[in-house]
Amino acid sequence: MKYNPVARETIDELIEITGKKNVITNKEKMEAYSHDETPAEQYGHMPEVVVTPETTEEIAKIVKLANRDLIPITPRGAGSGLSGGAIPVFGGIVLSVEKMNRIIEIDYNNMMIVLEPGVVTNEVNEQVAEKGLFFAGYPMSVETCYIGGNIAENAGGGKAIKYGVTGRYVMGLEVVTPAGEIVELGGKRVKDVTGYDLKQLIIGSEGTLGIVTKAIIKLLPLPTDKVDLLILFKDVKSAIGMVPRIITGARIIPTSIEFMDKLSVKTSCEYLNEHLPYQKAGAMLLIEIDGNNETQVEEDAEGVGELCLDNGAIEVYVADNYTTQDRVWSVRRNIAEAFKVVSPHQSLEDIVVPIASIPDLMPVLERISNKYDIQIPCYGHAGDGNLHATLVKNPESSMEEWYEIEHKALKELYQATKTLGGTISGEHGIGSKRKPYMESVSSPVELELMRKIKKAFDPNNIMNPGKIFDLK
Amino acid sequence: MKYNPVARETIDELIEITGKKNVITNKEKMEAYSHDETPAEQYGHMPEVVVTPETTEEIAKIVKLANRDLIPITPRGAGSGLSGGAIPVFGGIVLSVEKMNRIIEIDYNNMMIVLEPGVVTNEVNEQVAEKGLFFAGYPMSVETCYIGGNIAENAGGGKAIKYGVTGRYVMGLEVVTPAGEIVELGGKRVKDVTGYDLKQLIIGSEGTLGIVTKAIIKLLPLPTDKVDLLILFKDVKSAIGMVPRIITGARIIPTSIEFMDKLSVKTSCEYLNEHLPYQKAGAMLLIEIDGNNETQVEEDAEGVGELCLDNGAIEVYVADNYTTQDRVWSVRRNIAEAFKVVSPHQSLEDIVVPIASIPDLMPVLERISNKYDIQIPCYGHAGDGNLHATLVKNPESSMEEWYEIEHKALKELYQATKTLGGTISGEHGIGSKRKPYMESVSSPVELELMRKIKKAFDPNNIMNPGKIFDLK
Repeated sequence: MKYNPVARETIDELIEITGKKNVITNKEKMEAYSHDETPAEQYGHMPEVVVTPETTEEIAKIVKLANRDLIPITPRGAGSGLSGGAIPVFGGIVLSVEKMNRIIEIDYNNMMIVLEPGVVTNEVNEQVAEKGLFFAGYPMSVETCYIGGNIAENAGGGKAIKYGVTGRYVMGLEVVTPAGEIVELGGKRVKDVTGYDLKQLIIGSEGTLGIVTKAIIKLLPLPTDKVDLLILFKDVKSAIGMVPRIITGARIIPTSIEFMDKLSVKTSCEYLNEHLPYQKAGAMLLIEIDGNNETQVEEDAEGVGELCLDNGAIEVYVADNYTTQDRVWSVRRNIAEAFKVVSPHQSLEDIVVPIASIPDLMPVLERISNKYDIQIPCYGHAGDGNLHATLVKNPESSMEEWYEIEHKALKELYQATKTLGGTISGEHGIGSKRKPYMESVSSPVELELMRKIKKAFDPNNIMNPGKIFDLK
Repeated sequence: MKYNPVARETIDELIEITGKKNVITNKEKMEAYSHDETPAEQYGHMPEVVVTPETTEEIAKIVKLANRDLIPITPRGAGSGLSGGAIPVFGGIVLSVEKMNRIIEIDYNNMMIVLEPGVVTNEVNEQVAEKGLFFAGYPMSVETCYIGGNIAENAGGGKAIKYGVTGRYVMGLEVVTPAGEIVELGGKRVKDVTGYDLKQLIIGSEGTLGIVTKAIIKLLPLPTDKVDLLILFKDVKSAIGMVPRIITGARIIPTSIEFMDKLSVKTSCEYLNEHLPYQKAGAMLLIEIDGNNETQVEEDAEGVGELCLDNGAIEVYVADNYTTQDRVWSVRRNIAEAFKVVSPHQSLEDIVVPIASIPDLMPVLERISNKYDIQIPCYGHAGDGNLHATLVKNPESSMEEWYEIEHKALKELYQATKTLGGTISGEHGIGSKRKPYMESVSSPVELELMRKIKKAFDPNNIMNPGKIFDLK
């Protein structure tokens, strides 16, 4: 596929479509759009132009232009992604939805919110909390990420074990196709089998099949009560071994079962200047139980706590008020950020395995860590089998050595994950970062079907090219 | 598209693949495969041959043969469908999965079951109940339908308001593509964003994109307590008007909110020789609350009951033991069957609207009923906005008149449903029955994207052709 460069005439046309204030060509300003939260030097790439359209119609016109002139176009949310999905790896146009940030309607009667893709996820909850509602998606980047990015990646997060991931709550989408056509998929109905489920196909397609310009999101009644348990274990093995037991043994589905090894907790606590009692423990589980009945929630939490104590937990701390709950969760949410400060050279992974196989993953990480002499702190959504093992560059290696080690270690990790019935991404997506490894977990037939869909939607391959897989 | 007939050589080849006992050519025996639960005279069509393969490999070979020789192939489950999805409208091969009915594995550690498509849905629950688990899909035909059909239609049912529809529980699929290739999608992991979500695309695609040959289904802990409320209202309007209030007002999500008008209850009661107190009421709601705490469930049920009484309910009957619960639900489950006995000439509809718009649907039904002088009994999953309005032929009309009235009345009903933000099928699917009306609810752009996907998967259009939409 040969793309055309962004010419002076292209810029003029973009200005005509969106106005001068929405077209950025200044290199310094464009730099912020050249990377996401993956290491910039390794995965970053400069756009030729950035546009920040304000309406669906403008987006449709821009996409039509790109499609006509064979210019790659990369949709972008908050740039908080962890797989390079929003990086313009072939240059061209970056289309940022930052100015498409209106909440269009809060429909209490249908318990839905209609919004544009540039709304920050947490804002949804702030807007609807007073009416006793909430959006059950809860990515760890909830304070910065956009709804549009959540949809593009089908973001998971801390409450997925009970509430599922983003896609479960997306009832309707307005999408600009790679041909620049506007299409509405789904609506304010909670059931719909009218033909193929194009809405779910768009969700998680990482902006390669179209640009989401509007979404209808289902809200749930906000549980009135919750308890968080911070449970200390002597080592990683006993903490992780507990996860499948909780799920099958406690006969309740917790809202969250988050896992953090000692290094993760320590690093985040130091970053936040927070004092959790991590010294005693080799690993921790953070378990949340929610519900609408205080007694029930307390009983459930007690049951889970006792189950853990009966199975080797050192101590169970109960956080049952907002302040302590927020402190504990803040530690969990900030691990990735904290690690970036400590070491910029790392590979934050997103592997996922069947829950019963989580314990089997630990020796794999240990083996890889020893073999390549790298640290692999680990944390994540253990209740989903989704672990953010993070390969950290050994300070003694050169960058060249590190890239080689990273590639080899990832290959081994992914192979082992696959052997356990898992895959290479539970919620961060493939993007450009994991594209080279797609063939290690997806069969040729599966990949070919994906390619065929991509070609059917985007014959010119202008929409976020270089992501997920290459077209052959 | 020109198809080739099933020749003598085709039959020989099929016998070679699956053995003689699995190839049916006898007209009398094939008759059972010529229709589903839609009126046979109107929608039925004879196959040229029926095969009942026993393995995935046999299915792959049969599909390869069909694709090579351009013979249409129609996958079939229990034949309990309500949209003509399993009817071989172009003749050719019917591929019944009735002999693919093994439960391959019950994996308690991952709370999943692995099974073949011919397993009867209820059997899953029977198998896992002793371990305190259940499959949360609950189509009304649970006692006869196959899991494969549930997946093909993305079946909904009586518990969707709380538990969602079939697709939420399908973690993995083995599929034979229209080219006869075997592909595994997903697996025993609860999160997965490795490329496009082909699994969800197959779910609900009505057997037009491939044949499901194996499924991995997630189970949930079986709630320990439940209460059913049968709530009598003086008329349809007051019952239906209650639905959005319960959902937004009671701050709990009931397991079910089923609606039945008087005629539906009466017809089913007479069919079952059951005595529910329907004489007093113009309409009823059947509301189920489940949970793991008896007190909480009772309190929730009480709250819902009181809310209804405060808003004009005549009476609230509580069914809190298995026998009465089963009796009440049996009445609800058997409405469709009962109506078929009363009048074979009817159109069982499956419209769905936003829950807040359910009350607005009632005057529409009344208007259409008056205009065409037909009865339209109505029942369904009101909690999802999914109503099975049923157009019944006036005994005084000729069949010719009825077909004309049916078409006109459906057009009006669908148009009104669309205007309310709804669509023409919430759970039964489009199949051949609703295909002529797809354009009334799907935009040209959306339909074109669906067609492109179909062509990408099945360029020869051999896999269940004549369903959902026509290729242009």
